[in-house]
Amino acid sequence: MNYRIVLNIIGFLLILNGLFILTGIGFSLYYQSDDILALLISGTGTSMIGLIIWLATRKTEITELGKREGYLIVTLGWFVMAIFGALPFLLHGSISNYSDAFFETMSGFTTTGATILDDIEVLPPGLLFWRSLTQWLGGMGIIVLSLAILPLLGIGGMQLFTAEVPGVTKDKIHPRVKETAKRLWGIYVILTAAETLLLMVGGLNFFDAINHSFTTMATGGFSTKNASIAYYTSPYVQYIFILFMFFAGMNFTLHYLSFHGKFSYFKQNTEFKYYLGFTIAATLFVVIIHLPHVDFHYEEAIRQSLFHVVSLTTTTGYVTSDFENWAPYSRMIFFVLLFIGGCAGSTGGGIKFVRHIVLFKNSWAELKRLIHPRAIIPVKFNGKTVSSEVISNVQAFFIFYILVFVLGSIIISLLGVEFVTAIGATATCVGNIGPGIGTVGPVSNFAHLPEIVKWILSLFMVVGRLELFTVLILLSPAFWKK
Amino acid sequence: MNYRIVLNIIGFLLILNGLFILTGIGFSLYYQSDDILALLISGTGTSMIGLIIWLATRKTEITELGKREGYLIVTLGWFVMAIFGALPFLLHGSISNYSDAFFETMSGFTTTGATILDDIEVLPPGLLFWRSLTQWLGGMGIIVLSLAILPLLGIGGMQLFTAEVPGVTKDKIHPRVKETAKRLWGIYVILTAAETLLLMVGGLNFFDAINHSFTTMATGGFSTKNASIAYYTSPYVQYIFILFMFFAGMNFTLHYLSFHGKFSYFKQNTEFKYYLGFTIAATLFVVIIHLPHVDFHYEEAIRQSLFHVVSLTTTTGYVTSDFENWAPYSRMIFFVLLFIGGCAGSTGGGIKFVRHIVLFKNSWAELKRLIHPRAIIPVKFNGKTVSSEVISNVQAFFIFYILVFVLGSIIISLLGVEFVTAIGATATCVGNIGPGIGTVGPVSNFAHLPEIVKWILSLFMVVGRLELFTVLILLSPAFWKK
Repeated sequence: MNYRIVLNIIGFLLILNGLFILTGIGFSLYYQSDDILALLISGTGTSMIGLIIWLATRKTEITELGKREGYLIVTLGWFVMAIFGALPFLLHGSISNYSDAFFETMSGFTTTGATILDDIEVLPPGLLFWRSLTQWLGGMGIIVLSLAILPLLGIGGMQLFTAEVPGVTKDKIHPRVKETAKRLWGIYVILTAAETLLLMVGGLNFFDAINHSFTTMATGGFSTKNASIAYYTSPYVQYIFILFMFFAGMNFTLHYLSFHGKFSYFKQNTEFKYYLGFTIAATLFVVIIHLPHVDFHYEEAIRQSLFHVVSLTTTTGYVTSDFENWAPYSRMIFFVLLFIGGCAGSTGGGIKFVRHIVLFKNSWAELKRLIHPRAIIPVKFNGKTVSSEVISNVQAFFIFYILVFVLGSIIISLLGVEFVTAIGATATCVGNIGPGIGTVGPVSNFAHLPEIVKWILSLFMVVGRLELFTVLILLSPAFWKK
Repeated sequence: MNYRIVLNIIGFLLILNGLFILTGIGFSLYYQSDDILALLISGTGTSMIGLIIWLATRKTEITELGKREGYLIVTLGWFVMAIFGALPFLLHGSISNYSDAFFETMSGFTTTGATILDDIEVLPPGLLFWRSLTQWLGGMGIIVLSLAILPLLGIGGMQLFTAEVPGVTKDKIHPRVKETAKRLWGIYVILTAAETLLLMVGGLNFFDAINHSFTTMATGGFSTKNASIAYYTSPYVQYIFILFMFFAGMNFTLHYLSFHGKFSYFKQNTEFKYYLGFTIAATLFVVIIHLPHVDFHYEEAIRQSLFHVVSLTTTTGYVTSDFENWAPYSRMIFFVLLFIGGCAGSTGGGIKFVRHIVLFKNSWAELKRLIHPRAIIPVKFNGKTVSSEVISNVQAFFIFYILVFVLGSIIISLLGVEFVTAIGATATCVGNIGPGIGTVGPVSNFAHLPEIVKWILSLFMVVGRLELFTVLILLSPAFWKK
């Protein structure tokens, strides 16, 4: 293991992180808010520390960057970014204790969107912007961003890329990682800009529009309003949110190809078909079972149902009403939606559609294998047969996911959290969604949980965001062996 | 599909079923109870109907019995047995509606042990005995029994055996199925007799002793007492129950080898090591986290914890206290125990140890594969490498198990059952355990659930008892194709 290069890159990430913290100052100045000093100190401080680490480890053979370094850099990197990213909230005093500040920041970077803030609107604009920015950076991945703008990472880039964006299918936009990263971020920026404009058309001011666009495209779910999207009663605005949450949950390769007029790819894309089909089917189901219970008129019922199905499926986590209490069984329905996740190559978290599809198709094929033991029954995805390696990897992922969820729920409940809240909080944090069930439901927050629980949930967020393996691999002895 | 032979064998099962119903009359006569007529009519009636079906379909080429017929016979057979097995309760009137009688009988045959009886002790001895007998027959499998005593099933026997006792590892006691079935039932009878004696030594009368031995060895959990095993306050008796529940959860091949002095096999048996290790570890864990909350003295705390860990792990479902409410987190701990299951080749249900071990080892190996993509990392079980076919089958089983549990919970909750009770009832019925959590917890029963829910839960019991595939395979179009 080459620790020198690990530190070197983490140093660089810190420099970047500090600069991003400073960007909030623009809004602080414009709105004359009192958070300029907090952002200035933590921003420059973070960059300085990063610079020192970077300079101290500069002389490194970059070629040495291997798999191990890749996994370690990414995992450590994400923790370090949250550790320093929490400073502005703390220095400004709007979040008084560090556990809360760290939870909020990690919830940001991992695009979870779970908050400990009882009153979001009291936060000054600079901090609110930084809060949204953490999600935007985490959504496409700050390391992917580095790859796009850093020459020095050119060589070992692939390791970092696969560690931060593990996924299942490796449909590359460009043979070179640097170029792939550039294009991904390009699409990301364009879609974010487009949403910002469309939201401003809907009456949002620039500040609220860009903040919400950041957190939509990242499938993050942080809002600048206490009522989340319920604050915006305009159907137009809510439909814009639905549309862009759906876009954010799509494989960005599809966006890229669409920009180049190649729509034919949609037809052969298995995952997109399931993603679209599930969204429609689930929405209809939710509408039908809830109509007798809620006093929404038809359009509203459909919009509300569609909104929350998309919000939870894509792991965004915005809310427009207390869906958990629409009907006695709503809790069950929406809890299950916490285990879906977006598409591969999207900014969404969770188990993801591609995995659900492969798992289900293979299990179904297994029934046929019982009847025809000698026959070879392949599992098809995008018209191609899925290799046994991929199937085995997907199944391992699923089993680890369940394992993390179960052990997590046990630990959280041993720490004094009641049953329903424990499984809700664990599921929503591992899945990077935001709202859970019980006392961490859609209209409540995570403030009341014990400090230690907040730290553990923060850990689950990273484990989930980096798709388990990147973090779990560090627990394997084989990882540390020479 | 040769429906003639399917009917022929089901006819035979009915004859057998009717005769077994009649056995209860012995106790009715001895205790002068009022259930003689109910048992007599339903017993002879069932046998008569069976006889008619059997005679009508007698002239069949037995050699034609194939895979498909095997699966269909077993699935249908179990339903038919429960349909007729419910008659005594109904005719006697001690269970007034058929949904309840069917639920109780299916809960018996599948060794689940969930009951709809508010007062068990008012049941006359003949019916109580039949109730326990359903579990004893279901535990080792009535079809396996038929294989042992029926010449006519000699040829197609293997199909039926694998359909009723699917399991994972096929460690045959004897190359011939008939002999294997004979030996399995032999051990079963011996252990049941041994427990009966030891319980009588502990002060139980013959009736209670044999009833409880039936339901222990079947990992069933039906008791003749309303308070379940809490009725027997003697530590000796409770330890006897713990010991025999543990025996029932073991692979019966191990018992067979022990009887022949071959104890060396234990050392190389991976599953047994995990089974024993888990039981000890889980018990210590449960003791430690509960000591501050419960007012048991040490021996009692250990006994109570060990009792429920073994009772739930082996899927027996006896209770000696309201464990769900020992501490705020007890509900979580004991809920998770509903997903363990006994060993392969035991009478226990659930996911089973062998599967948990293979799943975990393979997932862990997957981490190593990420670090060494070219290396072949095998998964070892009993010293041998597990084939990719077995791994894939186990993973498919696990995914179907989760799928059945999740869809089941959704359906149950849509039918008006509250969240915690819905997942508790589904988990305990698919796992063939007995007590769930919420309003179907250790000190309550299933009587209050809506009728339709009882039917669905009964279906889950069979799906679980026949280890999913045997039933699910009937849903696959490939099964019905020529």
